Amino acid sequence: MSTSPQGVAILGSTGSIGTTALRVLQRHTDRFRVRALTAFSNVALLGEQVALVRPSFVGLVRYGAEPRLEWACGTGCLVEAAQREDVSIVINAVVGAAGLDATLAAVRAGKRVALANKETLVMAGPLVRAACREGGGEIIPVDSEHSAILQCLSGRSATDVRRLILTASGGPFRAWSRERVAGATVAEALQHPTWHMGRKISIDSATLANKALEVIEAHFLFGLSYDRIEVVVHPQSVVHSFVEFVDGSVMAQLGFPSMELPVLYALTHPERVADMGVPPFDPIEMSPLTFERVRLDDFPALRLGIAAGRRAGAAPAVFNAANEQAVALFLEGRIAFGDIPRAIAAALDAHGGVDGSTRDALGDADRVARRFVKELFRC
Amino acid sequence: MSTSPQGVAILGSTGSIGTTALRVLQRHTDRFRVRALTAFSNVALLGEQVALVRPSFVGLVRYGAEPRLEWACGTGCLVEAAQREDVSIVINAVVGAAGLDATLAAVRAGKRVALANKETLVMAGPLVRAACREGGGEIIPVDSEHSAILQCLSGRSATDVRRLILTASGGPFRAWSRERVAGATVAEALQHPTWHMGRKISIDSATLANKALEVIEAHFLFGLSYDRIEVVVHPQSVVHSFVEFVDGSVMAQLGFPSMELPVLYALTHPERVADMGVPPFDPIEMSPLTFERVRLDDFPALRLGIAAGRRAGAAPAVFNAANEQAVALFLEGRIAFGDIPRAIAAALDAHGGVDGSTRDALGDADRVARRFVKELFRC
Repeated sequence: MSTSPQGVAILGSTGSIGTTALRVLQRHTDRFRVRALTAFSNVALLGEQVALVRPSFVGLVRYGAEPRLEWACGTGCLVEAAQREDVSIVINAVVGAAGLDATLAAVRAGKRVALANKETLVMAGPLVRAACREGGGEIIPVDSEHSAILQCLSGRSATDVRRLILTASGGPFRAWSRERVAGATVAEALQHPTWHMGRKISIDSATLANKALEVIEAHFLFGLSYDRIEVVVHPQSVVHSFVEFVDGSVMAQLGFPSMELPVLYALTHPERVADMGVPPFDPIEMSPLTFERVRLDDFPALRLGIAAGRRAGAAPAVFNAANEQAVALFLEGRIAFGDIPRAIAAALDAHGGVDGSTRDALGDADRVARRFVKELFRC
Repeated sequence: MSTSPQGVAILGSTGSIGTTALRVLQRHTDRFRVRALTAFSNVALLGEQVALVRPSFVGLVRYGAEPRLEWACGTGCLVEAAQREDVSIVINAVVGAAGLDATLAAVRAGKRVALANKETLVMAGPLVRAACREGGGEIIPVDSEHSAILQCLSGRSATDVRRLILTASGGPFRAWSRERVAGATVAEALQHPTWHMGRKISIDSATLANKALEVIEAHFLFGLSYDRIEVVVHPQSVVHSFVEFVDGSVMAQLGFPSMELPVLYALTHPERVADMGVPPFDPIEMSPLTFERVRLDDFPALRLGIAAGRRAGAAPAVFNAANEQAVALFLEGRIAFGDIPRAIAAALDAHGGVDGSTRDALGDADRVARRFVKELFRC
């Protein structure tokens, strides 16, 4: 245990993961001190949080009329918060591609990044890995699946692993017919059966695009080829993922579906600290645990995403950007649910092969894919 | 990885665990060399094994007319094999109290004991722990439940653990009425639903005495109080046990019910080596996984055993000996299934408080309890 508290920055403090992280950190003030908070646009909640934890840095990405000149504003505040001297752990809970630069800045500055921003590794896995090597920083996943895998690995390397098996709840449409899924409404798609999450990720869970993003993340986090990463549907969301080792042993991490534990573990890894944030585990209450095959043909976003991961280069960034844009259009009521995978497929066909070797090239690929999707639906 | 193969002694090589261990070792001759084999009485199979692996020491515990004078014979051969210079790992797969002295000798000589002999820790946990400290030896469990816990711990200590949850198949009488269980036949009691094992342990699984022995073993192996060790019924025997950590995270080790993996892991721990002994894990095939409360009132041996563990001293040895004797009488058709827990309870009432502070005292307690059970049924 360290003697003085570690400084923590929370990027995206007003979102679902950010508020969970603050709750967890308030229980462990002996170990952690919140030094920086940034939010996208929720000034009211951010103000409350500032009053509560009194950070030394506050950032607001989208600023309007608020005359808060002592606050850093604009996208740059994410990078600024991530690089601060008084911060050693950066909780990156920003949604979307904006989180990437903050991650890169943090690992280059030698920080630990507790990463909830999926786009970081999906868009730019190789760049992020290089930046970690350069700056001595590290990425610790906050996603429940990747946290489970990290815990199952317990310091073992990829050479000890035969397969990762990521669990997927299957989302709200797990048992729906393909035809019915194609016409699902926004309200239906937001009804996640086991997790309460933000809107974007809830839609991604319904299309299974979220699981594709997680497969790509797992590839970069744990250094395993796509052949060795599988997905199984597990409607109860109790088993957060499996690792099968080379000797045939299978480890799993389980628990009540709550993000508190993955957030806490990302802060303390490889240590564990006593915490009562999740209810005691009761296998009887959680019984039965069931597992099903993924309906790949009926949820094409998953297969498209994994194919983009295998294709590498800018393809994962194009997958991600096309998905992000299509989900935004779906949430605005401008396209149908079934249009989301269609948009992704078309964007990958048109632009999946563009250059992805630099941060700038990936930014271009991201913009091109978004524009392509908007034009596809004349939005 | 070590450069020259490690010498291995298998005590109880012709039994269920012993033959499994030989099969596993034959796949890993680059790492391990079998130096010593001992069997109880199965000379024919032992002879085959000797021809196969050509050990430098062979022991036979119960010897009759066989003029095999180059073999060490009698109980002493176990200790002799366990102490040999060319042996660094002792697989103790002996059934019953006879395994204890071999374990003590091995750990005093600084060896690793891959322990399948439950009686070692149940009878003499504190003595074995002291002998490990003295001689620098170590105990690595071979039981699937304890192997699972060891794997879940991954080097973490008891202070990181909130609870152990041992899984129990529930045995062949899991869903039987109490009345029907009391009159179960030998053939019925030997029909274990998920594991193929020796006769003694199969009966112990039917009474749940086996789970009591495992709770006591877990107490000594992992240094946790009995309040922090729970049992849950899991009929599929796929989850081999759970560990709940102080931060609320729960780890489990899973797999097809096979002893090959626990045997291999006991040899290689903390390393893992590639092995194809168990079929690939398929959660879908194993679905659903169910968990139920233990019927403590209907399977009194479990509660009696845990109470004996808490009472400590000679009580666990008396529990074990009374159970062993009662199971033998049941297998001989001389007492009813329901008489087994009755015998245990009576033996603990009469002799549970005798001295258990030395090896000799424990031997006396063992003998007294056996004699008591025989007299109880006038056998």
